[in-house]
Amino acid sequence: MSSGALVVLSGGQDSTTCLYWAIDRFGRDNVEAVTFDYGQRHRIELECARQVAQGAGVRQTELPIDTFAALGGNSLTDAEIEVAEGASGELPNTFVPGRNLVFLTFAAAYAWQRGMADIVTGVAQTDYSGYPDCRRETIESLSSTLKLGMEREFVIHTPLMNLSKKETVLLAQKLGAIDAMSQTHTCYEGKRPPCGQCPACVLRAKGFAEAGISDPLVAV
Amino acid sequence: MSSGALVVLSGGQDSTTCLYWAIDRFGRDNVEAVTFDYGQRHRIELECARQVAQGAGVRQTELPIDTFAALGGNSLTDAEIEVAEGASGELPNTFVPGRNLVFLTFAAAYAWQRGMADIVTGVAQTDYSGYPDCRRETIESLSSTLKLGMEREFVIHTPLMNLSKKETVLLAQKLGAIDAMSQTHTCYEGKRPPCGQCPACVLRAKGFAEAGISDPLVAV
Repeated sequence: MSSGALVVLSGGQDSTTCLYWAIDRFGRDNVEAVTFDYGQRHRIELECARQVAQGAGVRQTELPIDTFAALGGNSLTDAEIEVAEGASGELPNTFVPGRNLVFLTFAAAYAWQRGMADIVTGVAQTDYSGYPDCRRETIESLSSTLKLGMEREFVIHTPLMNLSKKETVLLAQKLGAIDAMSQTHTCYEGKRPPCGQCPACVLRAKGFAEAGISDPLVAV
Repeated sequence: MSSGALVVLSGGQDSTTCLYWAIDRFGRDNVEAVTFDYGQRHRIELECARQVAQGAGVRQTELPIDTFAALGGNSLTDAEIEVAEGASGELPNTFVPGRNLVFLTFAAAYAWQRGMADIVTGVAQTDYSGYPDCRRETIESLSSTLKLGMEREFVIHTPLMNLSKKETVLLAQKLGAIDAMSQTHTCYEGKRPPCGQCPACVLRAKGFAEAGISDPLVAV
């Protein structure tokens, strides 16, 4: 079994930070990235992921998943549905049921084929958007399921799990990943420069502000 | 929450038996089927699934999954790889890592959207082909993962889990599903009438023989 690590890279701030975390921990030559083209409305995310991987000097594989768009019913793949926050106690309509579970299962399948055992994902339960598939207990349960289902001792690393956005920005700084943030994409509206208004932009801006670091994406 | 049940229907003998099991248990009007087009070499499976669902009088949805073919490396989606049984202690090359995990996760996503809580799958650990994602403990772990990840009290039913092929045939007889077996597909070689030589055909023939029932697919 190789000691390679596979990072699920979306092209966003969190997964980019995770990519640099993995390089720091496992060494650049032992890190690969996988990016999923799941029919996201904002195709710019895919281009961002490519640029981030290239900038970091790691091999990146893009895998298609056409199922979520076929399922429909969420604002991330369906252009006719506007992004809306959930009412109290309800999930927001950006929730794509099973999205992270599927991403991590396919990442594990890819890792299985390539003899890799470490998988890194940027999910976080702090500041999270109400997504139950980002919580620690979900990831731990999935980890057991993947081990049983594929007979591999996978380890799912979640370096951001308990970090606030501020702490994630500080971690990125420590890892030398702030410059790479200019290549990332966060805005739910798909705008570049970012809209600054959507929940994702607001959360990102808050993190950089609290960390006292200027966001190179906004500064551009 | 509706009391609907969703059957993962591949068009094979086992999932067809499960469809009739679900109809018997939940009532025809409360049962739906979902079939995955994951790029299987033998497209006849999809046509069989359609015919089985139509014959049973239940709504069927076909969902695409283009990811396994992109991953490659197995004989079920890659026409250039011949079906081969695994050496002792090894998985056969028909093993698609994560296949059942992904199927059930997408089935749960579809059920989530439609307010259904019961999912039925034909996996079996008896007479199974060495697939770790068909075992009871894997399915139980996945069930926990899906509940946590989607915040729904899913129940995954595995009526064939501990049945031999003989017992599955007897169950199909009890449920009035033997006639429907003429519409199913089992052969790994994709032949119709079946080749009778591949491991899947041999297993099926053994089950019917031991049950003392003639297989309407072979009799055709």
